[in-house]
Amino acid sequence: MGYQEQTIEGRNAVIEAYRSGKPIEKLYIQDGCQDGPVMTIKREARKHETPIKYVERERLDQMSETGRHQGVIAVAGAYEYAELEDILKAAREKGEPPFLFLLDNIEDPHNLGAIIRTANLAGAHGVIIPKNRAVGLTATVARTSAGALNYTPVARVTNLSQTIEELKKEGIWFVCADMNGTRMYDLNLKGPIGLVIGSEGEGVGRLVRERCDMIASIPMKGEIDSLNASVAAGVLAYEIVRQRATIA
Amino acid sequence: MGYQEQTIEGRNAVIEAYRSGKPIEKLYIQDGCQDGPVMTIKREARKHETPIKYVERERLDQMSETGRHQGVIAVAGAYEYAELEDILKAAREKGEPPFLFLLDNIEDPHNLGAIIRTANLAGAHGVIIPKNRAVGLTATVARTSAGALNYTPVARVTNLSQTIEELKKEGIWFVCADMNGTRMYDLNLKGPIGLVIGSEGEGVGRLVRERCDMIASIPMKGEIDSLNASVAAGVLAYEIVRQRATIA
Repeated sequence: MGYQEQTIEGRNAVIEAYRSGKPIEKLYIQDGCQDGPVMTIKREARKHETPIKYVERERLDQMSETGRHQGVIAVAGAYEYAELEDILKAAREKGEPPFLFLLDNIEDPHNLGAIIRTANLAGAHGVIIPKNRAVGLTATVARTSAGALNYTPVARVTNLSQTIEELKKEGIWFVCADMNGTRMYDLNLKGPIGLVIGSEGEGVGRLVRERCDMIASIPMKGEIDSLNASVAAGVLAYEIVRQRATIA
Repeated sequence: MGYQEQTIEGRNAVIEAYRSGKPIEKLYIQDGCQDGPVMTIKREARKHETPIKYVERERLDQMSETGRHQGVIAVAGAYEYAELEDILKAAREKGEPPFLFLLDNIEDPHNLGAIIRTANLAGAHGVIIPKNRAVGLTATVARTSAGALNYTPVARVTNLSQTIEELKKEGIWFVCADMNGTRMYDLNLKGPIGLVIGSEGEGVGRLVRERCDMIASIPMKGEIDSLNASVAAGVLAYEIVRQRATIA
C-alpha cells in the first residue's frame, strides 16, 4: 500500500505505458533524439501533458537500472490499492468500530487528496472509491493528500451499492450527505459507520443513496447551493468524530 | 461589492493593464493582426496564461464600448471590496451576533474561494483579508467560491492584528485555529465571534495569535500534520454553527 514512483525505460516500454493508460508523471529524453519512436513519445506526452526534460546521455545512463534506456526514461506513479478486508482489519486491530469514507465519483484530484487527508486525521480506517468514472490516485492526489495516502488505505470496488450491501452484513451503518436529509446533529452517528460523499456536481447517486440508512444534511444558511465537496466531507466527518468523542 | 468583469480596449491600454498587474481573464484579438504592439500583447498573454480568442473585426466592433479597440479587447476581473463597517451592519440588520472570518495570509486561490463559499453557507456576515502578501480576489477565487463572492462581503485591511483590536471594542471575541489549543468542543463559541484561519504552510502568525481570546484545536487522530486550510476552516466554522444552533 502507498504511493510510489516507478521508472520505465526504453522506447517501446514507454509507448506501451502510455497506450495502457499508466499515469506518466515525468519524461526524460536524450537531447537531440528526433527519430520516429521518440516523436511518437513526444506526441503522447503532449496529449497527456507530461512534462519533458531534455538531458545528456550521461544523465540517462546514471538513472538507468537496466542499462537499456534507448534515450528515453519515464517516471510513472503507481499506487497499490488496499483490499476491503485490510480496512476492516485495521479497525479490528485498533479495537474501534469501523469508520469508513465512501466516495461516489469524486472527480477533482485536489478534492480527492484533501478528503483522504481528512480521513486520516478524523481517524477513519480507510477510503473506498469506485473503479470506474471517478478519478484515480494520481501524483496530484498524492501531493494534496499531504502524505495521508501512505497511511490511510484506499480500496477500489466495482460497484459501490453492492459494497454497501456487503458491509451492512458486517454491522456497518451508512450515512450519506444530501440536502433534504435530517440535520446531522440530530442523527446518531456513533457506531460502526460508512460516510458516503457524492460527486462535486451531482451529489450522491440515486442507487447509492437508496442503500444508505441515514441522510445527513449540513445546515446551510447562505444564498448559494452547496459546500465544496472536500469541505462538506470534513464537516460531516468531524460531526462523527464529535459524537464518537462524547461516548466516553 | 461583488465580482465583476470589465473590458479594456486598445493596444496601449491592454499593455498597460498587464504591466500594472491587473488580472486579465480573456483576450480578444482581431484575426491577422501581427504588428509590434499586438506581438507584445501576445507575449504578455503567454506569460500570464491568458486565453486568446481570435475574432473578426465585426465581432470586436460589436463588443467595443469606445469604438476604438484597435484590434484588441481584454476582459479584466475586478472585485469591489466591502468596508469593515458594511459587514458589521449586515449582522445588525439580520439581528444576529457578528460572525466573521479573518484569513491570515491564505495563499492558494482555490482555498480562498472554498473558504468564502463556506463563510456564506455557515451564515458568516463577512470575510476579512489582509492587503499585503495574501492572494487577492481573482477569477479563480470567484469561480471556486461558487457565487459566494457575490453575496458574502470581503473587506481588505492593512493590519489584521490592529483590526482585531478595533473589533474587540465592538464586543467581538476572537478564536484562532492552532495545534496545542483547547479542543474546540470545550470552548464557548456562541457569542459575537471572529474565526481566524492561518495560512496553509505556517498557520496563524504570532502577532495575530497573541491577539486572539481563544485557541481552538481540531482533534487530530492520524499520522499526518494538518487538514487542508479550507477543510479546517469548514470544520471550525461548523462547530460555531452547531453551538449557535443549540442556543435556541
